[in-house]
Amino acid sequence: MARIDEIEAEVKHDVIAFLTNLAEHVGPEARFVHQGMTSSDVLDTCFNIQLVRAADLLIADLDALLAVLERRAHEHRDSITIGRSHGIHAEPTTFGLKMAQAYAEFDRAKSRMRAAREEVATCAISGAVGSFANIDPHVEAHVAEKLGLAIEPVSTQVIPRDRHAMYFATLGVIASSVERLATEIRHLQRTEVLEVEEYFSPGQKGSSAMPHKRNPVLTENLTGLARMVRSYAFPAMENVALWHERDISHSSVERMIGPDATITLDFALARLTSVMDKLLVYPDRMRANMDRLGGLVNSQRVLLALTQKGMSREKAYGLVQRNAMKVWESDGRDHLLDLLKADPELADLFGAGELEGLFDLGYHTKHVETIFHRVFGR
Amino acid sequence: MARIDEIEAEVKHDVIAFLTNLAEHVGPEARFVHQGMTSSDVLDTCFNIQLVRAADLLIADLDALLAVLERRAHEHRDSITIGRSHGIHAEPTTFGLKMAQAYAEFDRAKSRMRAAREEVATCAISGAVGSFANIDPHVEAHVAEKLGLAIEPVSTQVIPRDRHAMYFATLGVIASSVERLATEIRHLQRTEVLEVEEYFSPGQKGSSAMPHKRNPVLTENLTGLARMVRSYAFPAMENVALWHERDISHSSVERMIGPDATITLDFALARLTSVMDKLLVYPDRMRANMDRLGGLVNSQRVLLALTQKGMSREKAYGLVQRNAMKVWESDGRDHLLDLLKADPELADLFGAGELEGLFDLGYHTKHVETIFHRVFGR
Amino acid sequence: MARIDEIEAEVKHDVIAFLTNLAEHVGPEARFVHQGMTSSDVLDTCFNIQLVRAADLLIADLDALLAVLERRAHEHRDSITIGRSHGIHAEPTTFGLKMAQAYAEFDRAKSRMRAAREEVATCAISGAVGSFANIDPHVEAHVAEKLGLAIEPVSTQVIPRDRHAMYFATLGVIASSVERLATEIRHLQRTEVLEVEEYFSPGQKGSSAMPHKRNPVLTENLTGLARMVRSYAFPAMENVALWHERDISHSSVERMIGPDATITLDFALARLTSVMDKLLVYPDRMRANMDRLGGLVNSQRVLLALTQKGMSREKAYGLVQRNAMKVWESDGRDHLLDLLKADPELADLFGAGELEGLFDLGYHTKHVETIFHRVFGR
Amino acid sequence: MARIDEIEAEVKHDVIAFLTNLAEHVGPEARFVHQGMTSSDVLDTCFNIQLVRAADLLIADLDALLAVLERRAHEHRDSITIGRSHGIHAEPTTFGLKMAQAYAEFDRAKSRMRAAREEVATCAISGAVGSFANIDPHVEAHVAEKLGLAIEPVSTQVIPRDRHAMYFATLGVIASSVERLATEIRHLQRTEVLEVEEYFSPGQKGSSAMPHKRNPVLTENLTGLARMVRSYAFPAMENVALWHERDISHSSVERMIGPDATITLDFALARLTSVMDKLLVYPDRMRANMDRLGGLVNSQRVLLALTQKGMSREKAYGLVQRNAMKVWESDGRDHLLDLLKADPELADLFGAGELEGLFDLGYHTKHVETIFHRVFGR
Repeated sequence: MARIDEIEAEVKHDVIAFLTNLAEHVGPEARFVHQGMTSSDVLDTCFNIQLVRAADLLIADLDALLAVLERRAHEHRDSITIGRSHGIHAEPTTFGLKMAQAYAEFDRAKSRMRAAREEVATCAISGAVGSFANIDPHVEAHVAEKLGLAIEPVSTQVIPRDRHAMYFATLGVIASSVERLATEIRHLQRTEVLEVEEYFSPGQKGSSAMPHKRNPVLTENLTGLARMVRSYAFPAMENVALWHERDISHSSVERMIGPDATITLDFALARLTSVMDKLLVYPDRMRANMDRLGGLVNSQRVLLALTQKGMSREKAYGLVQRNAMKVWESDGRDHLLDLLKADPELADLFGAGELEGLFDLGYHTKHVETIFHRVFGR
Repeated sequence: MARIDEIEAEVKHDVIAFLTNLAEHVGPEARFVHQGMTSSDVLDTCFNIQLVRAADLLIADLDALLAVLERRAHEHRDSITIGRSHGIHAEPTTFGLKMAQAYAEFDRAKSRMRAAREEVATCAISGAVGSFANIDPHVEAHVAEKLGLAIEPVSTQVIPRDRHAMYFATLGVIASSVERLATEIRHLQRTEVLEVEEYFSPGQKGSSAMPHKRNPVLTENLTGLARMVRSYAFPAMENVALWHERDISHSSVERMIGPDATITLDFALARLTSVMDKLLVYPDRMRANMDRLGGLVNSQRVLLALTQKGMSREKAYGLVQRNAMKVWESDGRDHLLDLLKADPELADLFGAGELEGLFDLGYHTKHVETIFHRVFGR
Repeated sequence: MARIDEIEAEVKHDVIAFLTNLAEHVGPEARFVHQGMTSSDVLDTCFNIQLVRAADLLIADLDALLAVLERRAHEHRDSITIGRSHGIHAEPTTFGLKMAQAYAEFDRAKSRMRAAREEVATCAISGAVGSFANIDPHVEAHVAEKLGLAIEPVSTQVIPRDRHAMYFATLGVIASSVERLATEIRHLQRTEVLEVEEYFSPGQKGSSAMPHKRNPVLTENLTGLARMVRSYAFPAMENVALWHERDISHSSVERMIGPDATITLDFALARLTSVMDKLLVYPDRMRANMDRLGGLVNSQRVLLALTQKGMSREKAYGLVQRNAMKVWESDGRDHLLDLLKADPELADLFGAGELEGLFDLGYHTKHVETIFHRVFGR
Repeated sequence: MARIDEIEAEVKHDVIAFLTNLAEHVGPEARFVHQGMTSSDVLDTCFNIQLVRAADLLIADLDALLAVLERRAHEHRDSITIGRSHGIHAEPTTFGLKMAQAYAEFDRAKSRMRAAREEVATCAISGAVGSFANIDPHVEAHVAEKLGLAIEPVSTQVIPRDRHAMYFATLGVIASSVERLATEIRHLQRTEVLEVEEYFSPGQKGSSAMPHKRNPVLTENLTGLARMVRSYAFPAMENVALWHERDISHSSVERMIGPDATITLDFALARLTSVMDKLLVYPDRMRANMDRLGGLVNSQRVLLALTQKGMSREKAYGLVQRNAMKVWESDGRDHLLDLLKADPELADLFGAGELEGLFDLGYHTKHVETIFHRVFGR
């Protein structure tokens, strides 16, 4: 290595330095090495191998994440929690469904990562402007096969950079999915919500005398890392429009984003997997949060039941709303079911247990199994 | 429509306004419309249909472009031109190869566009938080089939936005390929190069009294449009991390980039197709530009031939370099072949016609057919 | 206008069409119009005027927003609320301080907007390549003065685009501040927090039978708009590297982002001002949220007081922690103050009212006035 | 250091590890260190100090670049070269004017860098949520003064990130100017243009036997680096919208872009300075390129002169165009001046030397001094 560095200091060309040093060891036969090739034949093919290997690591990362998500999904398939749109309580769902959604999303991420891998799994050994003037196409085909790569159908000294743009754009999309799940955890860990927490060991004491001060720093960290991975997609796209058969403007970009984007996403996926694996989940708290609204999440169902019993929508609406506002004003201390039972206008409408039935949460979870079957195939 | 607007002004909700108006025409049975659905079931599925249709248009655009590129490639398969790396003359290639490269790149673009289409070709009708509490999954399956869409395995009121991020990122990568080809044309049309020109009609006089002032404004325009399409990928990626089951931050983004990104790329592809279809190509000028360097592009090949005749690399190098420098200093007025012939040290080395053979351009184009076969399959 | 369109359809050049039509009305003297000028002298100077006027509107928007923020800041200067780091309760602050922070941030935005305005407030009338070959520099100076612009010291047919890049980058930064405040409102409006709400009129009933379903759709909308304005900064930066004295790739970008970025930010600032103006603020709920942790936010202060009384840090820590954990496990039903009072180890350490004093929230707000003075100068 | 690492491995908090170690050396008095502070008071203020120092380095870089540009501008103030719009010959300018334009642009960059420095030159020591509950504001004021920073008027544990967004956006704009000048050099070095070359030492032999193969690799490298610096502006803008008083998502971003953006721009500016300092400039080639169009660049001026002599614009246009087309078709072998002199219709119109005068290049450079005075003040 030292000798190569020494030569490079003189010739200012990394590949030539390597070849010169090789010749010092091999002797005259060294002239057959690199014959008819350009440095880009070596460097571009090698860069693609690096990206393919990085893709393999990222796919393995995704597999590990998927395994954890699947386990947590089944574990909490029936852990009822309130679904929130706009940050506001909507209707019940289950924590398992949240996990199933994440699973489906990262399963798509895996398919995309495979496609991205295929995009860059090419080999070019075509000489100065890609014309094979000084090297036979069979060499390329031979090497490609040995390396498990496809031949680059038409290269121009360089492998075209639309392939790499697609690769890094894919990393950016996957990082955005990382951000989504990380953001979900951050939300669920807020003091007022506290339905999950990033793991802390039994001995670990959070922030000493403030036992509530367990911060979701890992998922916050993931949010920032997602920003980084996403940002690397941009210069990768700008790299596509090289001048004529090639210029070397892409090189400095790739020396930075090649390692930075792949390592950062690898780290992020591993961290996310660890977070999800050890995530502390609090079903009781989920239930308590849902109940804080005194059964209001069932108001629409009551409304529907009343119309099905023949009441006009206007009248039913007025009746439900009257009671719902009382619940709301009590800040959840009154429960909608109790108020409805006590409402004289409803006295004769429902049979025994019928009203209670409208508050049965099983209504909301009856298709969870169907969705799980769709996602996990079982 | 006017009535719907009137209602919307009151209720401030577009879907409710539509449904209310529908009820005014349909009567009581209108209650079966939209039953158990949320607005997002309608809007998200419709947005996906729009993106699918846009994708179909874009794929058709790419087909048209590919047809033109294939035609121009075969037309100029043997139009020899100098390949340039770093903007500097390297070795000969053909204009047809440039077109073949572009063809291969846009063929990849087409595959990517198809994958992007598949990403967003889903249908969700799953209710308030995606739990199917108020609507049976069979409805979704039925509608999806009718619309030629796949069911969204797990939705959360909204269809997950990683699908759309991938879609818009793909448009960004394709736009980058548009930029690459546009940049190539812009370079080739520069005054000093002038190997191609954007079409101008016979009657058209360029810039009046300055007949050289035919500006590549269409491809410059495409360069700018590529920047725009690329930039839309970013907010699309930021849209992924919606809060909990959904928030509506993605909506304003999609109302802008939905039409802007797809229409801009559609326009760009159509313009690029037109530019390439009518592009004026000047093979004579290509040849003249190549010859301006007095045969220097063949110096490496001479060098190689000398070593093959047993001359040491050092000696061969010195000999070629000595003559190459003379050519260079003459600014192309002297030709390397003439100087080599006159060089006494070379007198006995080459047989009759052998030196001339080293300057035969066929050497550089002997594998063009192979590459064409790879790209076009014929 | 119709006539100009007619001419443009023929000559395909907007400025020439305008001038030709002008000549049809003015007669021979029309030749003095545009003499020695290029279209860019007109278009670039006009574009800058548009951007300057847009900047004036945006500065006025910011003034309106600042006025509202100042009013709300003083109105809620002492409305105590829990400060949150990582989404977790930390120490008390006031809602007024949150407003003061936003005020200071948008005051910086205003300074930046002024600087951005100055960046683009230039005029160029310098001819084909900016050499003033056919027009005297005095014309430029004269026009610049009349238009209230600075002369562009050295133009090259076009005004250099680094100015515009800075302008649009500034809009992107300001949009990010819009996103910050919008995100704060979204967080505070979540069901579990509900310390503020976007305005709804007394008659307005939220989501009918679900009175809690008031969604922060305006601030969610602002979050999306911020993504858009930010994204426009990118093509603006890519516009800087025009080829040689100019190419026209920037034009298609500017025709899109010129109106889109400025109008979107204008709309966003106006919407944010309206949201903040009418924001419903619930100090009682702020207090209730803070109290849910049973005084735990004061635990550090108690700890400090104990050490100041000479207790070792270890012992003090153990004592506080023991009681804090009880509070935490009671989910806020027990209050730290009560537990401490009942703790025998503390019996003799504090005088009457001393322990209560440690729970006095005035401790946390004693410097609010100082901060307000810094921000508002009063 | 080893001991600090050891402690950090245990407590997983860098600042606490430092403080604990400090206490091991200092003893009990160590409790006065960091009293009432949060880690962010230290880290944010230190980060700003780092950015301020980086800004100082970048301003020094810009000063060095400006000095070189000023020298090269004066050196080539009168080196006539063709101005190019759309890559097509337009009218003459001078290489000095190109340098003056770059000077003016980087002078603006310097002003922006100073403003960016001021944006981040703040100090915050305000405690857990910025309320100064446990630390007096005077401490902050005292430290700020000692460090040459302004106080942060209102902080919320963290210094607001709009400041940093503006800083990194500014780096992105400056990098875009680097790209512009780099692109200019790349264009001018193309084989067909060759008006300048990146420096190569006398001994250096370019690409061996191909003396023309001197590639503009340094400016290509700068083009790629500009893409990187620009891309970092994006996550910096996304960092602005932290949750409530703070979250830590910005931290991972800043640990990457803090060094990467500043070091990359520093390197790029230094490299650009070196390139411009040693740039080989070929005025003869500039002249030869301009002359290749046989005087066509003067056609508009001839046209103008004819109309000033009373000829109708139509007739003048036809006359000039007839001769211009001949020049064009001769590929520059015929010269417009010769053809005009030989045109019988022009025989009596011009006095002796008058036509020649219209081809005097001094016409185009008469205001160079004015522009230089504007830019350099001398």
